[in-house]
Amino acid sequence: MISIRPVEGLPEIGEGDDLAALIAEGAELADGDVLVVAQKVVSKAEGRVVLLDEIEPSDRARELAGARDPRHLEVILRESARILRVRPPLVIAETRHGFVCASAGVDASNTPEPGSVVLLPEDPDASAGRIRERLLELTGAEVGVIVSDSFGRAWRQGTTDVAIGLAGIRPLLDLKGVRDRTGYELHATVIAVADELAGAAELVLGKTDGVPAAVIRGVDARGEGSARDLVMPAERDLFR
Amino acid sequence: MISIRPVEGLPEIGEGDDLAALIAEGAELADGDVLVVAQKVVSKAEGRVVLLDEIEPSDRARELAGARDPRHLEVILRESARILRVRPPLVIAETRHGFVCASAGVDASNTPEPGSVVLLPEDPDASAGRIRERLLELTGAEVGVIVSDSFGRAWRQGTTDVAIGLAGIRPLLDLKGVRDRTGYELHATVIAVADELAGAAELVLGKTDGVPAAVIRGVDARGEGSARDLVMPAERDLFR
Repeated sequence: MISIRPVEGLPEIGEGDDLAALIAEGAELADGDVLVVAQKVVSKAEGRVVLLDEIEPSDRARELAGARDPRHLEVILRESARILRVRPPLVIAETRHGFVCASAGVDASNTPEPGSVVLLPEDPDASAGRIRERLLELTGAEVGVIVSDSFGRAWRQGTTDVAIGLAGIRPLLDLKGVRDRTGYELHATVIAVADELAGAAELVLGKTDGVPAAVIRGVDARGEGSARDLVMPAERDLFR
Repeated sequence: MISIRPVEGLPEIGEGDDLAALIAEGAELADGDVLVVAQKVVSKAEGRVVLLDEIEPSDRARELAGARDPRHLEVILRESARILRVRPPLVIAETRHGFVCASAGVDASNTPEPGSVVLLPEDPDASAGRIRERLLELTGAEVGVIVSDSFGRAWRQGTTDVAIGLAGIRPLLDLKGVRDRTGYELHATVIAVADELAGAAELVLGKTDGVPAAVIRGVDARGEGSARDLVMPAERDLFR
């Protein structure tokens, strides 16, 4: 059986907060658990917040803005390695990490104050690694950590949460060479376990009620890797 | 808390089997539970199996086949409304239901016998509805039912399970108009809850060990809708 428990009772998170310590207070952790933490609080603890009043929009940002604040678009452009599609107010971008998502992950909701936007962590794997180390120190438990964000998908409505950073987790389960019950070899079956874990955790996270983390127990996803392993390499990508 | 329990002890499923009755024997169900059933067993119970020996490949199927069996490609073409991308052996197609996935959902693994392929259910919402009705009759429990399949994604490695059919489930959670803690209105937040439920269930399903269903408890996803609500309407789709 798998259980998914929300981590409740966390205060509003600000720059410099010891997020892992706050989570350790609100959760019971055991070896092998997977802690999923919403990107938003990780970014806030890391001070990845930009005040729009300090941003001067470029011509390109003004052009893309449509009804949106051109300063917000300017921040999106600065966070993007490449813009894939634009249909105002929607901008689909590839972030410098390689993730393809709306607005390069720059978000104006649930920000510390009006007129600010929150960026993705600079190195989300490192963020996950620091939380993992700190939890080990505080609780003695060896947990896997996933930093999650809500991404839209091509061809499908709605967002699902996916892993943008991880530590102590095997992101993909590769069944190549495994045979089914009739002896047929499963050639192309690689399961994005870390994304399924992130999506499962979202079911208890909620967007507005201040539950920024969840603990999943009963899935053995222990291993090594990076959330960048979940990015389709450009040469295999049919949809860039 | 959410729990996810595998439904174990099911035999190999064949055409005409009363899948709901077999699940009712192997699971404890309560009102509001979500039952996720792998498409493969639903299709097998419905006889959606094609023997390749009975298929004559077209020229187009031979052309697309690469190293694959051209008869398999012929079945894929017959199940497709449109082919989006081809890079042998990979074919990304839109099924007649509107789903975009590899091989139009036609699968040669875990088939009843070598030399056969399994198709998606003709109407996966109706399949889910029949299972839901039969479980109500057998157990008295009003459960939501999701028929799931493993889909690849644009830009990301690996598959995650998504909902291709559903009954008694609200597929999307629309937070438009809801305000966050700072009063900012969440404009564009629609969560694909049914896909997150399908992905969460996959964590206990496994591809090879004969666990074709799971019961999720603790998520209130009751409602009405269709898995087609999860398909991005063509006019809003930036990636067709």
